[in-house]
Amino acid sequence: MNKVITISREFGSGGRELGFRLAEELKIAYYDKEIVTSIVKDTDFAEEFVREMTNGKNRMMYQISIGQSLNVNVDYQIQQMQRLIKAQTEVIREMARKSDCVIVGRCSDYILQELAEEKEIKLYRIFVYADMDFRLKRCMARSTEEENYTEKEMLRQIKRVDRERAAYYEDYTFQRWGERHNYDYMINSSNMDMAETAPKLAKIF
Amino acid sequence: MNKVITISREFGSGGRELGFRLAEELKIAYYDKEIVTSIVKDTDFAEEFVREMTNGKNRMMYQISIGQSLNVNVDYQIQQMQRLIKAQTEVIREMARKSDCVIVGRCSDYILQELAEEKEIKLYRIFVYADMDFRLKRCMARSTEEENYTEKEMLRQIKRVDRERAAYYEDYTFQRWGERHNYDYMINSSNMDMAETAPKLAKIF
Repeated sequence: MNKVITISREFGSGGRELGFRLAEELKIAYYDKEIVTSIVKDTDFAEEFVREMTNGKNRMMYQISIGQSLNVNVDYQIQQMQRLIKAQTEVIREMARKSDCVIVGRCSDYILQELAEEKEIKLYRIFVYADMDFRLKRCMARSTEEENYTEKEMLRQIKRVDRERAAYYEDYTFQRWGERHNYDYMINSSNMDMAETAPKLAKIF
Repeated sequence: MNKVITISREFGSGGRELGFRLAEELKIAYYDKEIVTSIVKDTDFAEEFVREMTNGKNRMMYQISIGQSLNVNVDYQIQQMQRLIKAQTEVIREMARKSDCVIVGRCSDYILQELAEEKEIKLYRIFVYADMDFRLKRCMARSTEEENYTEKEMLRQIKRVDRERAAYYEDYTFQRWGERHNYDYMINSSNMDMAETAPKLAKIF
């Protein structure tokens, strides 16, 4: 039975880093951006569209940002979303069936529930979070020169991404993002020494 | 620096068992009912009063259940609560200062925050939870013959104890019970094999 670890995370918490380190430690596959590449390969969607949408970019915002009229056929849009979600579901299930792996984001915790219930895989659903102070500091330290965010702007950005992730998760799963009963382990990464803690955490799985 | 693990838990989740196993595994002290005994020793409170109150038994309910008039001096009652809380705080801090330990419930995660910030102790705040189905089954299997609860009654009991714990925690800490940012690790014990998982978890601390 394949062992599959899904990582959901608050923006700036270092959840992706933890996922990567767990995969390294356990010597298993790690899927993050690869999900987007696979969906693009399986469909005729543009890469940018898939990336933005599966990252929880607000639909309406996306519509505005690519300059489409708001009067565009709504049925068509819903159809596109449904096609994307179907492709995403298939790609993530295929990854889980292929080998042990870590999968970051994209509602993978929810998508894989059925395979887990049918005992096709052993699923560990992890949610990584951290204090806002810690996340702000971490994001400021990692922001590029071009971004050049002030602390206030970065704070707004963190909250915006969290809101988008929550909305995408809730639209897709009808469950609340970050609600403890949807996860097996919730890990507070504030001030965590990941290099030290990840190998210890890996032993649980 | 002493290592202190606090366990908060949903009723029926097996959080106490996990705490006990962690203490055993790490060969460190385990405090649960000992907190009540120590408070009683340090004060003139009756043991039953301390046990009920520190378990989050609703104050008004307690008042009614011991048959006091509702017109009893409110100031006196508040004073009693404040004395109890002061004794509880002192007892828990003393335990944390004495040696490495696991402390179950009684707002210990909140009470020890200050010692952790002052680097007197290394604090790990754990919250244990589980699906309602799992908790119900676990509680039914463990209920005594005298209790003789139906499933419906047990469900009501689980929800009542959770509500009491939450209210006590919130009154005392002004924080939300079970809110992820108040804990370092949140662990879903549904269907967890504790004998197998506790030794692995112990390695994190």
